[in-house]
Amino acid sequence: MAEQPELTIQGWGPTSPASTAAPQQADGDLSSTLPKAARRYLGSELGWSPRPTPPVPVEDIRLAPSRLPEEARTRLIGLLGEENVRTDRESRLRRAGGKSYLDLLRRREGDASDAPDAVVLPGTTEQTAALLAACSELGIVVVPFGGGTSVVGGLAGVDPDDRPSIAVDLSRMSSVQALDVPSSLVTVGPGMRGPALEQALAREGLTFGHLPQSWEYATLGGYAATRSAGQNSTGVGRFDELVTGLTLATPSGVLELGHPPATAAGPDLLGVALGSEGTLGIITELTLRVRPKPAACSYEGWSFRSWATGLAALQQLARLDLLPDIVRLSDTDETRANLLMAAGTGARALRGSLKLRGHADGCLLVLGWEGLPALVRARMQCAASVLRDGGAIRLGRKVGESWKSHRFQAPYLRDKLMDGGLLVETLETAATWTALPTVYDAVRHALRESLTRAGRRPLIMSHVSHGYATGASLYVTVLADRDDALPIQQWLTAKRAATDALLAAGGTLTHHHAVGADHRPWMEREVGPLGVEVLRAVKERLDPQGICNPGVLLPE
Amino acid sequence: MAEQPELTIQGWGPTSPASTAAPQQADGDLSSTLPKAARRYLGSELGWSPRPTPPVPVEDIRLAPSRLPEEARTRLIGLLGEENVRTDRESRLRRAGGKSYLDLLRRREGDASDAPDAVVLPGTTEQTAALLAACSELGIVVVPFGGGTSVVGGLAGVDPDDRPSIAVDLSRMSSVQALDVPSSLVTVGPGMRGPALEQALAREGLTFGHLPQSWEYATLGGYAATRSAGQNSTGVGRFDELVTGLTLATPSGVLELGHPPATAAGPDLLGVALGSEGTLGIITELTLRVRPKPAACSYEGWSFRSWATGLAALQQLARLDLLPDIVRLSDTDETRANLLMAAGTGARALRGSLKLRGHADGCLLVLGWEGLPALVRARMQCAASVLRDGGAIRLGRKVGESWKSHRFQAPYLRDKLMDGGLLVETLETAATWTALPTVYDAVRHALRESLTRAGRRPLIMSHVSHGYATGASLYVTVLADRDDALPIQQWLTAKRAATDALLAAGGTLTHHHAVGADHRPWMEREVGPLGVEVLRAVKERLDPQGICNPGVLLPE
Repeated sequence: MAEQPELTIQGWGPTSPASTAAPQQADGDLSSTLPKAARRYLGSELGWSPRPTPPVPVEDIRLAPSRLPEEARTRLIGLLGEENVRTDRESRLRRAGGKSYLDLLRRREGDASDAPDAVVLPGTTEQTAALLAACSELGIVVVPFGGGTSVVGGLAGVDPDDRPSIAVDLSRMSSVQALDVPSSLVTVGPGMRGPALEQALAREGLTFGHLPQSWEYATLGGYAATRSAGQNSTGVGRFDELVTGLTLATPSGVLELGHPPATAAGPDLLGVALGSEGTLGIITELTLRVRPKPAACSYEGWSFRSWATGLAALQQLARLDLLPDIVRLSDTDETRANLLMAAGTGARALRGSLKLRGHADGCLLVLGWEGLPALVRARMQCAASVLRDGGAIRLGRKVGESWKSHRFQAPYLRDKLMDGGLLVETLETAATWTALPTVYDAVRHALRESLTRAGRRPLIMSHVSHGYATGASLYVTVLADRDDALPIQQWLTAKRAATDALLAAGGTLTHHHAVGADHRPWMEREVGPLGVEVLRAVKERLDPQGICNPGVLLPE
Repeated sequence: MAEQPELTIQGWGPTSPASTAAPQQADGDLSSTLPKAARRYLGSELGWSPRPTPPVPVEDIRLAPSRLPEEARTRLIGLLGEENVRTDRESRLRRAGGKSYLDLLRRREGDASDAPDAVVLPGTTEQTAALLAACSELGIVVVPFGGGTSVVGGLAGVDPDDRPSIAVDLSRMSSVQALDVPSSLVTVGPGMRGPALEQALAREGLTFGHLPQSWEYATLGGYAATRSAGQNSTGVGRFDELVTGLTLATPSGVLELGHPPATAAGPDLLGVALGSEGTLGIITELTLRVRPKPAACSYEGWSFRSWATGLAALQQLARLDLLPDIVRLSDTDETRANLLMAAGTGARALRGSLKLRGHADGCLLVLGWEGLPALVRARMQCAASVLRDGGAIRLGRKVGESWKSHRFQAPYLRDKLMDGGLLVETLETAATWTALPTVYDAVRHALRESLTRAGRRPLIMSHVSHGYATGASLYVTVLADRDDALPIQQWLTAKRAATDALLAAGGTLTHHHAVGADHRPWMEREVGPLGVEVLRAVKERLDPQGICNPGVLLPE
């Protein structure tokens, strides 16, 4: 069991030793967080006046007493040992919900009504299977807990029968189990995180390369359960494409799935476990495809005059199989905000130069290339010619390197923005190249309509971050002046409008955040009523008592 | 509905106008089929004496009267029209079984006991769904029929309850429904074949690129139902990776699956339909990823001194992401046979040159590179250096081109070899790079043990034909003197031994032939008893009366 930093209860970032005791600092005017130009821009765009809106002190968070029956506690202790069955306040608070804007709003307001009644820590597949069988018998709801970074209510633990619930913390199962270097395969526990895996692989000159924004805290098991995508996924593949084998402990027994490198032996059951979000059982082991550490890495920035020309050029790269390992095209609003966020003379010079070249309202493209030096060179050359034909201007390496060095920063910044009275949330989808412009327009329109009220307007910033031959993802960040009276309602209304709009325009419900509790009302629209029936049939066979994460994925 | 050539009833190749009437020519000594050196080699290796063993005349094939009840026939005619419900002898014979060695043995011996009681031809998804609902009510077993090229008993139609069965021929649903060029997507009917698709795509400068040996006859729906892989799959991807959407008509309704380019919305139901082999319903529409016709194509041959060094070099290419689009490494036995089969002075010169360079017992590697010229060049250069470091000798383009020009020939040759008294069959698996050598040895040992009798030995020829980062496929061709008294038993025993051996050594049950009736006894070993239960749960929800292809995939 590796020591891994834990997230704070009310936000992002590691717990500092004194954080639960020290009063929270709410820097309401954001002067130490945002450059002056960015603050001024936000104020004028949003109609927002910075104001301190700090979270309640952690000790004031309201937590109901544990409802775990004593008989059940004794049974779980018999299975896992006393130290691995916890009902103390801090253990429960730390596993309450995830890290969506709504989660943070609730936790900052002192609401922990979604906290589990206990936290248990199994150490093996066998213990997990025995635990699930026992909970099935005892009528206890089970919510797997990896890094706790869900942004879609994946840890909601809401049970229609209101049974007691436990969080199954997988941090004891977080080591490398096996490494098969010739076959480029590593077998790991589900509680392992990316940094620890990369450290272990680096000793062999290998890398895994899955780098979502939650990389510092999220777990490998969580990535599998939610079909994560990382910043390099255009190159290395989505997380689900990198899983070659998986052990799923269920209330009805253990499934060993996957047969690398490939099989034609029937329907893909591994693909049923991937994305199952804890509703079928708990992932207790994963075999993943690794690769040699790339000998060459090159990041570069480009600029397009418009979003439409940028998308068209990416689509050209995609159909020619020329997409880089990292691709990130920001729309005009995100480009402007990013340029304002970048302080210093270099950034000012860049803004000036883009303006001179007619790209004042342009769109920034960051590309990352990794692999063998000769191939990186050849791919970059081929791509450059396509990009130039598409009207792009090359901005060079600095822009790419700057993006790379800030790649994990956004969630930290969110805490600060929330401290200053802002609504800040993201959503994402994917669509074919043909549908993408329509989806983009539809989401922006829906969010703008919903969040424009009495002189206040949202700032909606979008980017494409994962490219495929057939389409791309679309990631949307929304900032708005928070409605302090009804902040949850404010976002729920906007999110509902955006989701309806993106589905109607041909987008998928989620490209890499998963379904969770937040998207489940739309799940039937995504897979159809008969599709839901098939998922239910699988669940009923594996989890007949419906104890496995009942609040997520499948509609009520 | 495109006109597509039909396969002969007793073998491979298109039906000639007079073929059902003309007596079959059995060229027992194979003098017009094999070069003299190859005939001599086979004789000495196998202990086989060529002898004419022709099939019975088609008109002597025994066919039981149709058991389709008149009430059912009337109902089906009401749904599909009289011309699309057929019970005539030829329609039924043409949809009897597939094209495995066992299928051909039966058909050549005059046995058509696996023929359907009727053949029906729906024209739309709606008609297919209505047909399935009606058959579910009437208790009629339904076997989808695409190209009829299954080599694993996929069309066996064996029902434990011995209900009447119909073949659902999909040839009326064989056109392009939609083409989205910017998104590189084409939507087709399941009865379409590769050549017709390529012809339609060529008009737009596009290609699909799925080229299994059955390419001339197999259908796109069949590829999806069986998770086919083609000769270019190392580059373009397996068929299942190219399906982005699929419509599955089931007795319980219609599923619309898939959401290109990617989704994180729960378990992958598209992956459940892929490889379902008709057990869940009938695929009535497919959306596939296409690509621009490659600007450069380059085929080349290399030689290794041994199988082990060849495998090691491929593994190096694989881990560096340097595998070509086509990769085919033959073992010593297959290389020797291929060189003997290639007549002419060029082939003789090649044999001589390999001998001089110490590669007399070497292994031939064929590589094919496709794509943008600059990238093909760069990839070939990087790969060449890895191959040379691994001890390979470059043989040049002729060897590659020669393979390419014969790529679809093997099944035609099989008919001739069977005419001459030979057992000839193939099997295949896949394993990690680490397990592959063990699997190879185990399969060869099992086949040799089983097929060596009284001075007769098998010739076992293997090749790797699909490379992955984590492992590769293994394809095995077996030739032996046929046991004319018990030919079916002879192969069943050998196949059982080989399958037990490859599973025990870590291979998968099938890499691209599917499960069918032939592999179903091992399905539980492949996915585990709980995995089988999950598959059954899905089937029960979609096909509660168990009418959908009951003889395949799921163990009894």
